[in-house]
Amino acid sequence: MISGGFILKIIVDTLGGDNSPWANIEGAIIELIKHRDLSVIFTGDETQIGEVLEETFEKVMASINKYDKNPALIDNLKSRIEIVHAPDIITGNDKPTDAIRLKKDSSMMRSIKLLREDESISAMVSNGATGALVAAATLRIPRIDGVRRPAFCPILPTMKGGVIGVCDSGANVDIKADLLQQFAIMGSKYLEAAFGIESPRVGLLNIGVEEEKGDDLRREAYKLLKETPEINFVGNMEARELLSGDFDLVVCDGFSGNVLVKSVEGTALELLKKIKDDIYSKKKYQVGALFMKQMFNEEKEFLNYQRYGGSVMLGSEKVIVKGHGSSDKVAVAKCIEQAYKMVEGNLNKKIAEAVSGAQTE
Amino acid sequence: MISGGFILKIIVDTLGGDNSPWANIEGAIIELIKHRDLSVIFTGDETQIGEVLEETFEKVMASINKYDKNPALIDNLKSRIEIVHAPDIITGNDKPTDAIRLKKDSSMMRSIKLLREDESISAMVSNGATGALVAAATLRIPRIDGVRRPAFCPILPTMKGGVIGVCDSGANVDIKADLLQQFAIMGSKYLEAAFGIESPRVGLLNIGVEEEKGDDLRREAYKLLKETPEINFVGNMEARELLSGDFDLVVCDGFSGNVLVKSVEGTALELLKKIKDDIYSKKKYQVGALFMKQMFNEEKEFLNYQRYGGSVMLGSEKVIVKGHGSSDKVAVAKCIEQAYKMVEGNLNKKIAEAVSGAQTE
Repeated sequence: MISGGFILKIIVDTLGGDNSPWANIEGAIIELIKHRDLSVIFTGDETQIGEVLEETFEKVMASINKYDKNPALIDNLKSRIEIVHAPDIITGNDKPTDAIRLKKDSSMMRSIKLLREDESISAMVSNGATGALVAAATLRIPRIDGVRRPAFCPILPTMKGGVIGVCDSGANVDIKADLLQQFAIMGSKYLEAAFGIESPRVGLLNIGVEEEKGDDLRREAYKLLKETPEINFVGNMEARELLSGDFDLVVCDGFSGNVLVKSVEGTALELLKKIKDDIYSKKKYQVGALFMKQMFNEEKEFLNYQRYGGSVMLGSEKVIVKGHGSSDKVAVAKCIEQAYKMVEGNLNKKIAEAVSGAQTE
Repeated sequence: MISGGFILKIIVDTLGGDNSPWANIEGAIIELIKHRDLSVIFTGDETQIGEVLEETFEKVMASINKYDKNPALIDNLKSRIEIVHAPDIITGNDKPTDAIRLKKDSSMMRSIKLLREDESISAMVSNGATGALVAAATLRIPRIDGVRRPAFCPILPTMKGGVIGVCDSGANVDIKADLLQQFAIMGSKYLEAAFGIESPRVGLLNIGVEEEKGDDLRREAYKLLKETPEINFVGNMEARELLSGDFDLVVCDGFSGNVLVKSVEGTALELLKKIKDDIYSKKKYQVGALFMKQMFNEEKEFLNYQRYGGSVMLGSEKVIVKGHGSSDKVAVAKCIEQAYKMVEGNLNKKIAEAVSGAQTE
C-alpha cells in the first residue's frame, strides 16, 4: 500500500533473457497490480517496450470480470511505469569486463548506472548475462558499510520442501576466512528477510563433517563461524547433504559454490532427461507414464529453480536480483517480489548492523 | 593365464565395508576363478576368513555342473590364497592420522604395510574408510618416480553410457598448476589402461568455459594443459557438464573435486528417493510404476556407482583401489579386476614415462 506517499522503485531490465522482453514486462505488471506502492523503470528498446505494454494492458483488461473493470486501473499502472531507452543487449558471449566498458547503451549497464546514480531507486531485476551483472555490480555499485566484498547467492529447493541459499557462488574466487564469516551473516539476514526463515541453519561447505577437516581456510573459518553470535552455525556440510533440508544456508568460496550449484543443476536435468528418453524407448513405459503424468509434471515443477526466486548480490548498497535466463513471466514476478521484500524488510540496514556487530567483537 | 610362472598378487582387505567380510571374500573368489595367474592375500580376522572361505567353496562347488566338477579346482584356489591375521577395523569415525598411528593391527594398516614391504605384491583393494586409506597411501607408499603428489580418482557414469574420472577428488586440497598437469597425465594413462579409452578427453574444472575464466590457478593450469602433448586437453569444463559424456576426465583441486562428486551422488540419490516417495503417495502412480518397474530398476542400476569400479590412488608405486563402502561381491570383483588390469597394463611404468616426458619439455 502507498503509505505516506512512499513509492518503492525497481528497475526491470527487459533484455537478455530467453523470453525477453515479454516475460519481463508481463512479470512486472503482475507485481504492479499486486503492490500499489511499487513503481518500475523498464530499460531496453523503447518502442518494443511500448508495444508489449499496450498488448499487456489489453490482456489485463480482458482478464478482469466486467463488473470489476475500472478504467482507472490502466492509468494507475501507467503512472507507475517509466521507460529508459537502452536497446543494446549483453549476451553470455560478451566478456564481462568488455561489456562493462564498451556496452554502455545496453539495458543492463544503463540499469546499473541508474541504480548507482538515482537515490530514489532501490533495486534492480535482470535475467541477462550473469557474469556481466556480477562484475558490474561489484565494480559499479558501492558496498554496504563494513562489507568487504559482495557475494552472489542463488537459492535451490530442498527435498523437504524448503530452500537453501549458496553464498558465495561465483563472485569471489580468492577468499579468506573473514569473508566467509561475512557471507554467513549476509546470507542469514537475507533468508530471514526474503523467505521468512528464522535463525537460518548455516553450514560450511567442506570435504568432511569433523571440525578439523579441509584446508587451512576451512579450519580457520570453522573456528570463526562458531564464535559469531549473529548466525546459527551448525557445522561443516558435505556436498551430498545440500538438498537434504538440514541446512538453510551453505557458505563457501565462489569457485566451489559455483561447482556445487551447477553440478546439482546438471545432474537433476540429465537424470530427468534420461528418464524421459527411457520412457520413449518402450511402449509399456509409455503406458505407465500416462498414469504418472501428473507426478512427472510435479517433479519437473519442483526442479524448476525459477519457481524459488532469483539469485541475489548480497553486500551491494542497492538490491540486485538475477533471474534465470529462461525465466517466464511468473519467474520474473517472483524475482521482483523478492527484491520488493528485501527492500521493504530493510535487509541492507540489517546487514550493516550485523556486519559491524561481528567486527567489533 | 599363468605365464612363465608369473603370479600377480593382490591384497584384499576383508574388513570395513558394509557387507564385509562376505562380499570381499566372495568377490575375490570370483576373480580367482577368472584369472589363473592371480593370487590374493586376505587381511582381517583369520578365523572369520577361514569360515567364510569354507562356505564359499561349498557354494562354488554346488554351482558347478556335475560333469564339469573338478575336485582340483578348490585345491588350486586354496593354493592361491594367503591369510594375514589383522582383526582391528578402521571406521569413518577414526581420525585418519590417528588410525595410521594407533591402529597398526587393523586390516587396512596391515595391508598398507605389506604392500610397502613385500616387493612381490602389486596391488591392494579395500572398501574401508576412505580418509584413512588416502592418508595412509600418501604417507606410507612411495610415489612413482617424478610424481609430486598422489591423487584420488573416482569414476562416475555418464549419460552416454561411458564413464568419467575425477582427478583429484580429496587427496590434495592445496594445489598448484603443475600438479593439475600431473593429475591430467596420470588420469589419462589410467583411463587408457583400466577402461580402454583411447586418448581420453581431458577437461579442467572451471566456473566458465572461456580460457580466461576462474582464478590464477585455473588460468595458469589452462595454459600448461594446452601445451602438454601427453594428454588430449579439450578445454574448461563447467560442473553441469560432468555427466554429459563430452569428457573422459576432469582435473581439479581435491576440494572442488570432492564437492563435485558428492553433489552429483547426493542429487541423484535424493531425486530417486523423491520419485520413490511420490510413487507411494497415490494409487494411480503405483499402477503406473508397475509398467515401469524394469525401467526404474535399470535407472537404479545405472546410478549404482559400484558397477563402474572403485576409486584409485594414482601416483603411488603400488596400485590401490578403494571400493564403495556398500560394495557387494560383484562390486568387489570389479575393483579387483580393475587392479588386475592396472598392474597387467603396466600403468605405473607408463605414468612414470609420461610424467618425466612432460617435465623435460
